This record gives sequence, structure tokens and C-alpha cells, in this order.
Amino acid sequence: MTADLRTMLETIRKKSTRLLIGLMSGTSADGVDAALCRITGAGRDTKAEVVHLASVEYPPAIRRLLLGDLRLLSCEEVARLNFLIGDIFAEAALKCVAEAGLSRSDVDAVCSHGQTLVHFPEPDHPAIPSRATLQIGDISVIAQKTGILTVGDFRPADMAQGGEGAPLVPYVDYLLITHPTLGRVMQNLGGIGNLTYLPPNASPDAVIAFDTGPGNMVVDGVVSLLTQGRQTMDRDGRMASSGCVHRALLDRLLEHPYYRKPPPKSTGRELFGIQYSKSLIHMASESGCASPEDIVATASELTVQSVVRAYRDFVFPLGPVHEVVVGGGGASNPYFMRRFREELGHVRVITHEELGIPNQAKEALAFAILGNELLSGRTNNLPSATGARRAVVMGKIALP
Amino acid sequence: MTADLRTMLETIRKKSTRLLIGLMSGTSADGVDAALCRITGAGRDTKAEVVHLASVEYPPAIRRLLLGDLRLLSCEEVARLNFLIGDIFAEAALKCVAEAGLSRSDVDAVCSHGQTLVHFPEPDHPAIPSRATLQIGDISVIAQKTGILTVGDFRPADMAQGGEGAPLVPYVDYLLITHPTLGRVMQNLGGIGNLTYLPPNASPDAVIAFDTGPGNMVVDGVVSLLTQGRQTMDRDGRMASSGCVHRALLDRLLEHPYYRKPPPKSTGRELFGIQYSKSLIHMASESGCASPEDIVATASELTVQSVVRAYRDFVFPLGPVHEVVVGGGGASNPYFMRRFREELGHVRVITHEELGIPNQAKEALAFAILGNELLSGRTNNLPSATGARRAVVMGKIALP
Repeated sequence: MTADLRTMLETIRKKSTRLLIGLMSGTSADGVDAALCRITGAGRDTKAEVVHLASVEYPPAIRRLLLGDLRLLSCEEVARLNFLIGDIFAEAALKCVAEAGLSRSDVDAVCSHGQTLVHFPEPDHPAIPSRATLQIGDISVIAQKTGILTVGDFRPADMAQGGEGAPLVPYVDYLLITHPTLGRVMQNLGGIGNLTYLPPNASPDAVIAFDTGPGNMVVDGVVSLLTQGRQTMDRDGRMASSGCVHRALLDRLLEHPYYRKPPPKSTGRELFGIQYSKSLIHMASESGCASPEDIVATASELTVQSVVRAYRDFVFPLGPVHEVVVGGGGASNPYFMRRFREELGHVRVITHEELGIPNQAKEALAFAILGNELLSGRTNNLPSATGARRAVVMGKIALP
Repeated sequence: MTADLRTMLETIRKKSTRLLIGLMSGTSADGVDAALCRITGAGRDTKAEVVHLASVEYPPAIRRLLLGDLRLLSCEEVARLNFLIGDIFAEAALKCVAEAGLSRSDVDAVCSHGQTLVHFPEPDHPAIPSRATLQIGDISVIAQKTGILTVGDFRPADMAQGGEGAPLVPYVDYLLITHPTLGRVMQNLGGIGNLTYLPPNASPDAVIAFDTGPGNMVVDGVVSLLTQGRQTMDRDGRMASSGCVHRALLDRLLEHPYYRKPPPKSTGRELFGIQYSKSLIHMASESGCASPEDIVATASELTVQSVVRAYRDFVFPLGPVHEVVVGGGGASNPYFMRRFREELGHVRVITHEELGIPNQAKEALAFAILGNELLSGRTNNLPSATGARRAVVMGKIALP
């Protein structure tokens, strides 16, 4: 093992094909996804393939901590979690290497998103007037425990240049999914719905990205409330598919001002969290929409209509859309997929799988790509999506 | 500005002389020291010169936060402070460059220690069984705000290899101060006293480092208590020099078991903080040592004797000592310097100034040297001092 970063970078740069591991843990705090990716080229010439995907769950005590009010964790807890989660991220990377039948020396770099604890896009704290973001899982710990060069902690550089530090995936979509003649919308349906629009042969400035509104969050919330927590999601869209949409209720829900606001815009649990689901159920009973299936169908249709209207109002005017690629948990909901196909007529509605990317590996792959850009000497944020003053090289590097 | 780290490292490596800025902020949380350093070579061939030293004070509200119980800061405060202190570190670096009459493009890299919030060498937390350390002042923020390649956050890599993540300066002493024929003790007198012993022509394994006991902490505490806070230190050792040491009280104080414990050992505010100064004053009044000058003289002599006994018991048996180099605030206390010279007879007692290093710039210079080692492709911890399983490259890198 050389201690020389310059030599390591030279070796990596010379390879026509690199093996990088992307590490991702989302806000659901289930655990860590590790995607071993085979990557050639960089920039618009990037080609990427997921070789293997492994996951490690967080111990229950850690998951409980991560699902509490993270702003209130103590400094001691933050510091110790930063090391402990670094260990778990390293474990996920090593598990992925072993399951793929490879040795750690085959891997060129680990690229980690880390675990988000807090994200403050505004300097609205009385004593400490500074914007901030905090992703933990120390990259020096990951590098030492895996013995592999590690890149991570991408968001702060973008924020230091006035950006939101988010979203970061649209740049990866821009690299991997932009098509010479087809216009594509990448429609992610996590808790929140967000899209990236990639015009045909897009330049970086032409890419736009914003949150469309609820993804699965409102449906999940409504199902949890209606079943007293026995179910936490509408599996396979079964309730929605067997119910009827209550048109008047849906129209009231679509009056929410968020949908009319022009992009850039982002939203979250503050607007569409469990309180919103409660008020939706209340409005349903007022409207005489009593069957649980009808309520879930109406909540599901809210996601569909908010997405489709976002296309009509903010995307179609910008250029052609030939394909919509649905990702995130919502891609597994047949109700959503069927309704998008019905509503979008001429547009082809597909999933990441049809582009050769396992749906579950998409986010971890994205951070491998961001790391590949850094290691290739390229900037890796998308100012049109984050609002940063300029393109920068996001990410820190730690030696093994 | 290239985005390519490999090219930057190559450019830096080719230079016979590099300009690096070391950034340091200590536990007193006064502010940030920035030392612009001219460095040639690497490893044992390193030559370093401090070109300019600049300081930036923390805003009073931030200093107040940093002097409270840092373990209890909230995650939100930690995240926002990480960015805000990154800004202040960047400001100190830019101020140093401007005062030196240079441009930021003349500087090859910024090397930052950061501001320590917490340090837990033991995994002794009930819910999160992990050792940890946390230095803030985000290096991506520093790199973006200065436009200069930034290296920092050195301690985690050593801790991930089982080390204490401290002390880090002995490796720098080893590089810069080791003499081919003279044995040297680097005696730092900050709040705590600590030493590094460098035998003649030392190999890394032969270097030992440990805390000797109180440095200025007990004297400062006693002066604060005796003057009801009107004075916070015995300026120029005036009180100590005009008092008489109370021999019986001193002997009782020297019975503290810490002094007999063989190295490696470290101590801090837990043993020698303000409670200890209170009990010293109480013991003084019991012993009939009533004059404030006599109490301060006795407390000062405690530092002197604990240091001298550490040499007698743990250093002289290991090899010759020709010179003691006193650093830290205690180097400005004539009582300490006179008494060391009287006690150490044949040994030459000097300060960093006599080795060409401004006393106040020593720590900031040390981190420039640790960064220079990383940029030169070398490991930069000293396992014999930190307890790490092996030499590693400490530090993370962020691009401008």
C-alpha cells in the first residue's frame, strides 16, 4: 500500500475500467446500501454498470437514535455516531466486495454519501448565523477500515458556493441518462416526488430539477392512520386500485399552493408529513368519502396528478419529453405506473431497470459516479439544480 | 483553477519550496492562528520557516459557546458551527496571505487542525460504543472560501487505527528538531505540560511523548481564585518570583499519583482543573501558607518539579538530554525559565525562538508540516506517541 495520493490517482486515471463502491443511506435510516460499480470514462462519456448490491442494517439502537429528532442529538452523540457509522459503512463496502467474489485490492475507491443528520439551507439560527449540512460516517474511518481510498461528504462544497447542497443526483442523471435525440424526465418517487428534466442532447444549464410534491409520503401516512399502523404502505397499490378517486376531494387537495409555485422549489415532511395525512382523512370524511380504499385511491391520485401537472406547467413548455423514467419506491406501485401511462399518452413510461440500472442501486451508484468525476479531475455539481454560484469539485478524500 | 487534484499534487510536488498555511485554534477558543510557512523537502529533510503569523478572534457569542460544555451542544449547533468556523478559518488564512503581501495563488495549500469540540479516547458511552474525536471548521468550506487546496481533520485516521489521535505534534518535533548528536526534550507548557523526547539521531520508534502534569493551568486557576478573577494568570511570573515556596505543601502536592505513573500517560482538566486549584488553596491555608505570593510560588514550583521529576524518572534513563526547548505560554514565564535552568544545571534550556520558530506560531506550523507530509506522499502520525497500530496518512483533502 503506497501512502502517495498522487500515485493512487495516476493509477486510477490510467485504468480504462474502474471498480468503485457507492455507499448510501437514506432518511429512512434502515441501513447502508453498497453498490459495486464498473465505470468507464468520465463526464458525458461515462458508462456505468452495477456489478453487485449489498446492504447492511443498522443495529436497532442506532436506528432508533436516527429516527428521533436529529437536531437535538448531543455533540457527544454526533461525534461517536460519526465513527460508529463510519465502521458500518466500511462493513457494507467489505461485505459487497466479498459477496462479489473480489478482494479489496480490486476496488479503486469507495464513494460515500454518508448519513444525513441535519440540513439547514437557511442561516436562520439566532446564535450561529450560518447555513449548514451534516452527513456523518467519517471517511477516514471508512478508508482505514476498508484499506481503500475513500471519497465522500459531497454537499458542503456546493453549499459553500451558495448552493443548497441538494439535489445531487440530477448531475448523475445528466451524465448517464441524457439522450442525443430523446427528451427524458427522471421521476423519483421517494417520500417526496422529485424530477430531473433532461432535454435532448442537454447542456448542463438546460437541466432542471425540482420537487413535484408528495411521492409515497401521503399515501403511506394515510394507510398507516387508516390501519392503526398495521400497514405502513399500500403494497402493490392494491388499496388504490380497488378504490374510486373522489373527484371533489382531489380537486380541493390540488389547490395546495405548492403545486402552482414555479421551480426551483423543494418540499418535505414540513408540508406533506403525517399532519397532512391526518387532515386529508378529515377532509375525506367531510366530503362523504368514507371507504378506506377510496381515500387511498384519492391520495394516490394526488401524487399522480401533482406529477402530471408539474410536467404540463413546468416541463413540457421547455422542450420535448419522450420518456419518463420512474424510480424510488413508487416505481414498485402498479397504480402509479398504470396511471402515468394513461395520463401521459404518447410518452413512454419506464423504470431504471429498462435502462440497465437496478432500481434499488440507483442512489448508491449515483455517489460512485460523483466520486468518479472527482477522481477524473472534473467538477461534479449541477449549479442549475443546486443554485450554486459555480461548478465545483464536491467531496473530500481520505487515504487508506 | 484546475479541478484536477492529480495535477495540483504534481505541481506541488515539483516545487523545491512550498508555501503552506497552517491553521490552529486551541482549547482556549480565543480565535485562529494562521502561519504562512515556507517549507522545503519532506520527512527528515524538512526545512521550515514561518514567513508570517496572523490571528483572527472569534466573535464573542461564538467564543462563549465554545467555552461551555461542548459535549452538550446540539447537533444543529455543531452543524452550523462547522460551517461558521470554516468561514473564520478561511478568513484567517486570507488575512495572513494579504498581510504577507502575497496573493492566494502563491499558496500551495491550507492545512487546518480545526477546532476541537470533543475527544473521547474510550468507547464508554452506553448507547454508542465507539471512540471518537470531533474537530470542526469544514475543510470544503475553507477550500471554497480561500480558493486554495485544503488539508485537515487529521485525528480520525489515527484513531481508526487504534491510536489516541493525539498527540500529533511530536511527529513534527521528530522531523524538525531531531539533532544528529544532541538529545533534546521539547517541553510544552500550555494548560497541561507535555514533552517529547528526541534522542540523538532518533528513529521514530525511539521518540516518546507524554503529559508531565500541570503546565499553566493550576497557576492560572490559583491566581484567578486569589484575585476573584481580576487576574487570570501570573504575568511574567511576578507573583511567583516575589513569593516563597512552601516546602511541606509542595511535597504534599507532589504525592499525586499521576507523577509516579510511567508513560504513556495523558491528563487534563479532569485532574488539574479549577477544582484542583481550589483544593490547593484550601491545603495552603491548612498548612499556614497564607500569602497569595507564596501560594502562587508553590503552585508554580509544582509545575517545575513535576517536569523535572518526569525527566529524572522517565527521560534521563532513556538517553542523553543536552537541550530542553520550552514552548507554549509557559515559555513567557521567567519564573519557569529561571527555575528550569537552576534545576537542570548542565542542560541548556532555550525557547523555540532560539531554533528560529516564533513561539506563538509553533502549533500552526506543526499542522502545515503534517499537511506537507500528506502532500508529499508520506505517513504523518507517530505510533510510539499515539498508540496507533501503524503509521498512516492522517488528514482529508478538499479541492478549491
